[in-house]
Amino acid sequence: MAERKIRLGAFIPTTSQHAAGWRHPESRPQDHLNIDYAIELVKTAERGLFDAYFLADTLAVRGDWGSVTSKGWSLGDKDTGFEPVTLFAALSAVTKHIGFVATASTTYEHPYTLARKYASLDHISKGRAAWNVVTTASKQVARNFGLSEHPDAKTCYAQAHEFIEVVQKLWDSWEDDAFIYDKDSGQFFQPEKFHEPQHKGKFFEVQGALNVPRPPQGYPVIVQAGQSEDGRELAAKFAEVIFTAQQSLEDAQAFYRDVKGRLAKYGRHADDLKIMPGVSIFVAKTAEEAQEKYDLLNSLIHPQVGLGLLSGLAGGIDLEQYDLDQPFPELDEKLIDFGSRQQMMIEIARKHHFTIRQLYEYVASARGHWTLVGTPEQIVDQLQEWFEHEAADGFNILPPSTPAGLNDFVDLIVPELQRRGLFRTEYEGTTLRENLGLKRPENQYVLAQRNTAVAS
Amino acid sequence: MAERKIRLGAFIPTTSQHAAGWRHPESRPQDHLNIDYAIELVKTAERGLFDAYFLADTLAVRGDWGSVTSKGWSLGDKDTGFEPVTLFAALSAVTKHIGFVATASTTYEHPYTLARKYASLDHISKGRAAWNVVTTASKQVARNFGLSEHPDAKTCYAQAHEFIEVVQKLWDSWEDDAFIYDKDSGQFFQPEKFHEPQHKGKFFEVQGALNVPRPPQGYPVIVQAGQSEDGRELAAKFAEVIFTAQQSLEDAQAFYRDVKGRLAKYGRHADDLKIMPGVSIFVAKTAEEAQEKYDLLNSLIHPQVGLGLLSGLAGGIDLEQYDLDQPFPELDEKLIDFGSRQQMMIEIARKHHFTIRQLYEYVASARGHWTLVGTPEQIVDQLQEWFEHEAADGFNILPPSTPAGLNDFVDLIVPELQRRGLFRTEYEGTTLRENLGLKRPENQYVLAQRNTAVAS
Repeated sequence: MAERKIRLGAFIPTTSQHAAGWRHPESRPQDHLNIDYAIELVKTAERGLFDAYFLADTLAVRGDWGSVTSKGWSLGDKDTGFEPVTLFAALSAVTKHIGFVATASTTYEHPYTLARKYASLDHISKGRAAWNVVTTASKQVARNFGLSEHPDAKTCYAQAHEFIEVVQKLWDSWEDDAFIYDKDSGQFFQPEKFHEPQHKGKFFEVQGALNVPRPPQGYPVIVQAGQSEDGRELAAKFAEVIFTAQQSLEDAQAFYRDVKGRLAKYGRHADDLKIMPGVSIFVAKTAEEAQEKYDLLNSLIHPQVGLGLLSGLAGGIDLEQYDLDQPFPELDEKLIDFGSRQQMMIEIARKHHFTIRQLYEYVASARGHWTLVGTPEQIVDQLQEWFEHEAADGFNILPPSTPAGLNDFVDLIVPELQRRGLFRTEYEGTTLRENLGLKRPENQYVLAQRNTAVAS
Repeated sequence: MAERKIRLGAFIPTTSQHAAGWRHPESRPQDHLNIDYAIELVKTAERGLFDAYFLADTLAVRGDWGSVTSKGWSLGDKDTGFEPVTLFAALSAVTKHIGFVATASTTYEHPYTLARKYASLDHISKGRAAWNVVTTASKQVARNFGLSEHPDAKTCYAQAHEFIEVVQKLWDSWEDDAFIYDKDSGQFFQPEKFHEPQHKGKFFEVQGALNVPRPPQGYPVIVQAGQSEDGRELAAKFAEVIFTAQQSLEDAQAFYRDVKGRLAKYGRHADDLKIMPGVSIFVAKTAEEAQEKYDLLNSLIHPQVGLGLLSGLAGGIDLEQYDLDQPFPELDEKLIDFGSRQQMMIEIARKHHFTIRQLYEYVASARGHWTLVGTPEQIVDQLQEWFEHEAADGFNILPPSTPAGLNDFVDLIVPELQRRGLFRTEYEGTTLRENLGLKRPENQYVLAQRNTAVAS
């Protein structure tokens, strides 16, 4: 087996990750829908040998940030952007190696159209597509799809299981060698290598086959990000990459052990799932300079925006009535928006006795993800510790500002990772699976036929 | 006003348009999911100064071709391919001028996700996106979306009207100058230029705004292809391009007059809608050579495939029991699959007293579209006649095989069109609207505010 290397994903919205990142002097918010700028960013990420470009997603304006728009202030940098699958299709045409993790919802999309667009993206990118499966817990999304309330979490997760199963059946509609293109006989494909899902489940009925041949990767890589019990079980069954928010080595190790321990019951090996915590990095050649970068961005958070960031946590309480530098108030948990991230941030506020301002600075930076401030050596020391002590197989990097934070990572952190032999110096393969060290899944119909043949 | 020019769309599936086109010696069926081949094709089309690359679409294998797969034969060349919006996003990244007409369904997609992907494609392509609105009359699609039957045509068209209205509201969510990106004040956009649709209709409830800024073209160009009474009315209200199947100058003129005559009642001008019949062209330097090209492709239609093509027309009758060279049998029209194209082809069979073989050759070529065989001069004579006598504002070219038929058009027909001053020698604008000579639609919320201001 090749030496174990750190896997890296890059979260690079064209605005910025940090809520005030767009106000950074080098940021280009006016280019947030400029494809040329998106191409610059992906080329930087590919120069940094990232495994994948990762985009979060939702189906609403201000999906999980609460609303301050009505007050005349704006969280606009997170409100609008490209739709991820179309953006990634375009970016795949101008890159060769980097993978693309597009987020899409099992609650608000349909398995046929979702299976189809990801299969198409996998063909277009020659095997570099991944699907980050989300259940989209958001009232703002529900009201865009004719629902008065978002379905409860149990229902959403049950639907997610069935959704993924249907999508995998659709991706298996055509065996890898189904097409023969025989001009002489006129036969285009072998009908015995064509399979219709004939699926009738609790949530979906999908009878016919997908009108896209099997994706180059078999299935696009399945990614998952929920931290709840339901989320972990979904990940253990289906996910090949987990994006997770962890605050300490101990917590990350506990999560790592827990999720990896669930794989065996689904007949899976620990290596079949890569655990990649998110990390927001402020790096500079000196520790002082790095701290200045951190302080600069936090100083740019407008207090109204900061309060807006917390509105989803505040359970309907108007935080404006409080002094920003007083402790975060007690909350009625029943009023809090559904979501494991929100729960975690409230726990953090309590643990650290954060003031309102400290909490919104914390949330603004990386929405509850691990944040590191320091020199390349200091930061890589910590990444290495997590990687070598069963806390992480890699990391999803959340550059606080774009492009500055991304450039810093590629120019300062990547060389230090490489110097220590922790990270690739060139791409290993041509597909995302090959680069991540993941198996190509077999076609379930081929597998079933082989099992039948063995049994008889 | 600039001199009126012919508008051209190119239908270039990576397989071929003609059912036996993939068996043409130059065709590359093995590349039908190879993005590099798709890039070659779009670059050829852009060299030919086409206004747009057009792809039909359905959400099933063998959406409207009937099934011969079960018999061991295959219409495989029409069964699988890229999903159009993802393909066009990729192709837009490697082109500068050509537009992209992607087909999508108002019956099986949701307005929010559809509005979003087309808005994203319009940003990615810098204003070169178009949406071909279809209602998807297909049992094969219905069974992929949990429906036992496709909804009736009246319901589908009523839903289509509401769907387009919702999509246009979503595209108008942000006024063109809503974003100010003011780093100093921290204001990203002006909240008074942000509008939520708050739509509650018969088919859809969509409350929140789109999370993509207004498309560069205001709205992507709206294209429509139905020929029924319902289809014409939908086109008159919304469409800016009509793709239509017309067999004779007289029929084309009648259609042209009829549809253009319906525009005034929606406050629209005749120039606001471009009528572009489909035409399949077999061209060569001599008439004999052109005829040979036509005969070659027809000789490559496997009889089982030919019969499969007619299965949607045959109302359940097994055509195999008949001699292929006997007249097409009488049919029980009640058993025929819903669809104006099917109706038209049966009329054609009766009018020309076609045998079964002649009918499937006819269908195989261009599915009921006008077919021209001859020299560049002969063909352009006919195109010119339609263009100059109120039968067409342009044409959708259906090259019978790919790439040969496309290359022939670009190398032989385009120069002849240009020599006569009928077609551009360079692109006029940077957006599809500019090239087609279509107005950029105003934002409906801005318009409503202005009307309110005028009234008060």
